[in-house]
Amino acid sequence: MSSELGKNIRVTVFGQSHSRAIGCTVDGLPAGIEFDLEELGAFLQRRAPGGTMPSTKRTEADIPEFLCGVLPGKDGKTLVTCGAPLTAIIYNKDARSSDYSQISDVPRPSHADFAARVAYGGFEDIRGGGHFSGRLTAPLCIIGGILKQELRRRGIAAGTHIRSIGKIEDIPFDPVNINAEALGKLERSGRPTLDPEAWEDMKTLIENCRRELDSVGGVIECAIAGLEPGLGSPMTGSVESRLSSAVFAIPAVKGIEFGSGFAGSSRLGSENNDGFRVSSDGMIVTEKNDHGGILGGITSGMPVIFRTAFKPTPSIAKKQESISYSEMKNRTLEIKGRHDPCVVPRALPVIEAVSAITVFDLLLDHKKHI
Amino acid sequence: MSSELGKNIRVTVFGQSHSRAIGCTVDGLPAGIEFDLEELGAFLQRRAPGGTMPSTKRTEADIPEFLCGVLPGKDGKTLVTCGAPLTAIIYNKDARSSDYSQISDVPRPSHADFAARVAYGGFEDIRGGGHFSGRLTAPLCIIGGILKQELRRRGIAAGTHIRSIGKIEDIPFDPVNINAEALGKLERSGRPTLDPEAWEDMKTLIENCRRELDSVGGVIECAIAGLEPGLGSPMTGSVESRLSSAVFAIPAVKGIEFGSGFAGSSRLGSENNDGFRVSSDGMIVTEKNDHGGILGGITSGMPVIFRTAFKPTPSIAKKQESISYSEMKNRTLEIKGRHDPCVVPRALPVIEAVSAITVFDLLLDHKKHI
Amino acid sequence: MSSELGKNIRVTVFGQSHSRAIGCTVDGLPAGIEFDLEELGAFLQRRAPGGTMPSTKRTEADIPEFLCGVLPGKDGKTLVTCGAPLTAIIYNKDARSSDYSQISDVPRPSHADFAARVAYGGFEDIRGGGHFSGRLTAPLCIIGGILKQELRRRGIAAGTHIRSIGKIEDIPFDPVNINAEALGKLERSGRPTLDPEAWEDMKTLIENCRRELDSVGGVIECAIAGLEPGLGSPMTGSVESRLSSAVFAIPAVKGIEFGSGFAGSSRLGSENNDGFRVSSDGMIVTEKNDHGGILGGITSGMPVIFRTAFKPTPSIAKKQESISYSEMKNRTLEIKGRHDPCVVPRALPVIEAVSAITVFDLLLDHKKHI
Amino acid sequence: MSSELGKNIRVTVFGQSHSRAIGCTVDGLPAGIEFDLEELGAFLQRRAPGGTMPSTKRTEADIPEFLCGVLPGKDGKTLVTCGAPLTAIIYNKDARSSDYSQISDVPRPSHADFAARVAYGGFEDIRGGGHFSGRLTAPLCIIGGILKQELRRRGIAAGTHIRSIGKIEDIPFDPVNINAEALGKLERSGRPTLDPEAWEDMKTLIENCRRELDSVGGVIECAIAGLEPGLGSPMTGSVESRLSSAVFAIPAVKGIEFGSGFAGSSRLGSENNDGFRVSSDGMIVTEKNDHGGILGGITSGMPVIFRTAFKPTPSIAKKQESISYSEMKNRTLEIKGRHDPCVVPRALPVIEAVSAITVFDLLLDHKKHI
Repeated sequence: MSSELGKNIRVTVFGQSHSRAIGCTVDGLPAGIEFDLEELGAFLQRRAPGGTMPSTKRTEADIPEFLCGVLPGKDGKTLVTCGAPLTAIIYNKDARSSDYSQISDVPRPSHADFAARVAYGGFEDIRGGGHFSGRLTAPLCIIGGILKQELRRRGIAAGTHIRSIGKIEDIPFDPVNINAEALGKLERSGRPTLDPEAWEDMKTLIENCRRELDSVGGVIECAIAGLEPGLGSPMTGSVESRLSSAVFAIPAVKGIEFGSGFAGSSRLGSENNDGFRVSSDGMIVTEKNDHGGILGGITSGMPVIFRTAFKPTPSIAKKQESISYSEMKNRTLEIKGRHDPCVVPRALPVIEAVSAITVFDLLLDHKKHI
Repeated sequence: MSSELGKNIRVTVFGQSHSRAIGCTVDGLPAGIEFDLEELGAFLQRRAPGGTMPSTKRTEADIPEFLCGVLPGKDGKTLVTCGAPLTAIIYNKDARSSDYSQISDVPRPSHADFAARVAYGGFEDIRGGGHFSGRLTAPLCIIGGILKQELRRRGIAAGTHIRSIGKIEDIPFDPVNINAEALGKLERSGRPTLDPEAWEDMKTLIENCRRELDSVGGVIECAIAGLEPGLGSPMTGSVESRLSSAVFAIPAVKGIEFGSGFAGSSRLGSENNDGFRVSSDGMIVTEKNDHGGILGGITSGMPVIFRTAFKPTPSIAKKQESISYSEMKNRTLEIKGRHDPCVVPRALPVIEAVSAITVFDLLLDHKKHI
Repeated sequence: MSSELGKNIRVTVFGQSHSRAIGCTVDGLPAGIEFDLEELGAFLQRRAPGGTMPSTKRTEADIPEFLCGVLPGKDGKTLVTCGAPLTAIIYNKDARSSDYSQISDVPRPSHADFAARVAYGGFEDIRGGGHFSGRLTAPLCIIGGILKQELRRRGIAAGTHIRSIGKIEDIPFDPVNINAEALGKLERSGRPTLDPEAWEDMKTLIENCRRELDSVGGVIECAIAGLEPGLGSPMTGSVESRLSSAVFAIPAVKGIEFGSGFAGSSRLGSENNDGFRVSSDGMIVTEKNDHGGILGGITSGMPVIFRTAFKPTPSIAKKQESISYSEMKNRTLEIKGRHDPCVVPRALPVIEAVSAITVFDLLLDHKKHI
Repeated sequence: MSSELGKNIRVTVFGQSHSRAIGCTVDGLPAGIEFDLEELGAFLQRRAPGGTMPSTKRTEADIPEFLCGVLPGKDGKTLVTCGAPLTAIIYNKDARSSDYSQISDVPRPSHADFAARVAYGGFEDIRGGGHFSGRLTAPLCIIGGILKQELRRRGIAAGTHIRSIGKIEDIPFDPVNINAEALGKLERSGRPTLDPEAWEDMKTLIENCRRELDSVGGVIECAIAGLEPGLGSPMTGSVESRLSSAVFAIPAVKGIEFGSGFAGSSRLGSENNDGFRVSSDGMIVTEKNDHGGILGGITSGMPVIFRTAFKPTPSIAKKQESISYSEMKNRTLEIKGRHDPCVVPRALPVIEAVSAITVFDLLLDHKKHI
């Protein structure tokens, strides 16, 4: 299926940018998962435009409505899953459909418009990118935010920072010592980088892009701390296969690497290999973590580290080259409307959400020995 | 499932490095696919050690035996699928189990040994890496090689070259003009690079690594030419999700990027966007191909381009740091036996194989409009 | 997953009897399927209580709201799928939760209460049977009703009649000559039997059951006419495996048989075998249809015929034996509230709906030969 | 997929009646399952022709060869799963292909020949029924026999008897008191009925059918004892959906019913409902078991009881009506070769095998509450 994530739980994301509502249906969710609505709202707010992030001005009040799958918690501030499929929706409100009328004949460069038209035979919903819209990451954050709370209860945290925007780089996570506490602190700081100056530079760059009707891409680094060793499987059951499949479900992602990744591929084995050590508290660890917490597709107990490349937002207001379907000839295009010059800051919680979904799904795998 | 690829066809890879046999079972394969056994043998030979590639000396006669799922073709040189599940096996012969006795107590750095032991509770087959062995890519090449022949009949080619080994780089594919003919010519040349000198330098580097009991990683670039636009789907049905899930099933892969990938993430939208053009023969194309042939998860009709990062082979004969399970303390390890200082040259057909499997699987998706 | 149907399209049914809403999310649906809302409403009405069927008095206004996955059709009376996942919901309105308070301590005989409590650890929604309620068949009828319209456009009809209620029997379908036209006529007649007198007798029986605070079961016979030969596959891909898996998703179903079914199992091969004939219009047919239109799991081109056994509704108002969890001892139970003495008449469209879903799913299977 | 069973473990059955080998590949099997080869052989022998069962004379030495997925057990008499996919094969030996030459032009009545020809476009293997042959139930018995041993270790037994052949009936299982001990005793008795006289009568009937070149069908009743309550899920995750999907993978099965099944559908709720009781040892039970151990798709803790209808073997030597493809006209057919006049006695272990596979798969479901 196209819009499903997960093997043990199955998250189906539905909706179009301008449909009546967007949302997710989650089957297979264990009963008894309690989540705080205020905390979920704060998590969703990180994805919303505005707030601390310099982003598109379009306002979204992404308050999810839970149609089923939950019962009220004890104090009225939480909900508890009841084991039936959970469906949560967000109504689409502030959408100016007229902004997008032009693209029915002229596909936007590097958008899904053309490919979708061929695939869906012209029946697709083109308004606002339809089901291809970045807005569809909101439902991922609903279920991801719920599972993030459950993972924290189990001592597991998925956290992110912006590794780079354009050519501006943040300092990387310490792949050995990053832990749930540090990730929580970073999230609460409201700053999406480890280095405060990098964030100031990034904001300036994004603001410049907005002014020049351009956009810019970036890289998000994610660390998942607190995972026990032994999760995952070889081959397509690997943590890498499952995480990458989920991460590429996010619009604009064009690359993923684990541990030392592409850089490690230019090294010698003697440089890149992670020797084992018995730690002071009697655990089997490695001194460095070039393997990114995954060996043979299975968690090693070291933090899982991966980086995701986001292309620059294709929606830019600059004049661009395209074609007209009706005339079948070249023509230029100027896209009107509000555009987000850089999706990377808003994509941090989305990466955390798909990580939380995938990790929770891994935890539900049946035991690999009797 | 762990060892399955594909959605419409389902390839299950089975076997351990030292089990009686390895192989694959393929369910859902359409009847009537005819394949040439000699051509399949030549394809498998590219993955085998020796030949043109400087690799481990262990000899494998990887001649598959087809147990079912096929009937003889007209002239005795081909087999034709009959629609029943296909199972092909390769018997394991030349395996010196004694080489691996040590690792039952001392896990090899950056190998799956430790993670597998936790996951499988000590019941796992540790001989030669068990089910985690690179040898398990041979069955992928059987079905991949069969489907490659079928794809060629449909004008589709998946071809590869070594983009880099260590810090030695080949020139990249021309992402716009690469086509099935050029890819076929490259494959028949027997040289795994576009630049002959790069290959000479790479061979020297690999030979040096062998001599110094070390290893080295690299990057493989793959181009899939001849794809119609409209294949794939948004989200986890995306070409990226499906290809990445399959590619990370290959041991030693730690990264994947499509089109301009990580490099593109540092660019402006105005640089990275691919404007559309009407070509001289009336097709909708783009002048460059930073999107790597995939927009919104769906093929655009431009060549699909992706690069895969392979870590240096973790099996090196140099003295390394590890631990002893029985003593639960640090100790050093010297791995004996033959080791491949660089898997990258042998991995080219494996990348082509999983590409062929994934592309054929995409072609079998049900039509996305009535 | 638990609440999913289909392989090529995936229908997830969500909701509980007393949750805010119930509904379905359908992924993989081709774009361009147009359906008439009035006709869909009429189909859903057949499942609703009241109308021609003697059933529970609780009124449901099951008007689905389409949240996404559709665009308006040309004349405002139809909707057209756009290829994005479709989600349709029905808000729960007229539910008297107080009716069900007792069962939290005393499980209702032959209901899911006890099994669900063990499975979901007490976190389950017990109001009105929660996710186990027969009300969850309404979302099946939404997507089933949509696909029934699409199948009719392709000359395929799934129709049903009540084969028996209690010991009152209707005459069976003619398994050879039943066709789409006859099935359409039967549906439009508003009578759920072939024999008008049988229906009168059944209604009397149901009314008697209601009066005596009891319930009664029955058998529904379904015919699927207009199917081409060659659909389905051997083993679990068989039409029988796929239909039975879907049919047992309906609450109260306890048996299914195809063609001559259980009766055929007491026959000789020479009686039960269906010889082939060339028909007057040059088709390969059989003179009788004891195989129920399925040979080797694959359609033969003859009508698919199957019968489904529904147990008597377990909700009866008579005094029954049960236990108290809190006291862990035997006690009697009198269930209050409105109960449907026989679900069979309302289950006809549900059987048609899961048939339509399964048949449409079969039609989307990839071609089994090149 | 067509030839796969299971959700948490995935059993793919491969092979054709006359291919080089048949077998199964099982992915997802936990490591550490130890099984006795002699006991497995005895189980497979129950399916083999000859022995205590009056059946076709064709001799099969169905000794499976384990290609991978296992390591030797301690004493050389057992094998232990190692967590890698298990593949076991049986080579096809005693097959007279010439027996089947005729059917390439004249399809056998009530066989898969015609449907398969349409589905596979003439590329299918017609020798001996190809992948549709009852011989393909042998691989099901390999993995089913392995899991049966593992289930016994956990106190769970799946046992069968012939409920009827033709019109001769055995006494039914006591659905309340049947237990693992009684089922084991019945299996060891070597007699496939509870009533010895019924078996004598059945053997006579089968012998008569053989003499008259005819065949006969029957019903198998299966009991699964020792299951904890709470296994399974509502809707398609139900025990009924999963068991029925697996059971209809067996050739010749045309019906299945659980508990009181079709008979129960003619009863009143007050007759059919199973009131709960606290047993003398403090368990929640029911006094009778018309629900067949499944409520709301979930096990109740009572024995799971189901009956499966087998049609008479379509292979009979009597002259029958068919058609010729090449001439497209009616003609008669006399099938030569050895035929099994009744598959029911040999099908008992097959029903037990798919039950064991399905139950083991259910046990691997992730926990439905935290």
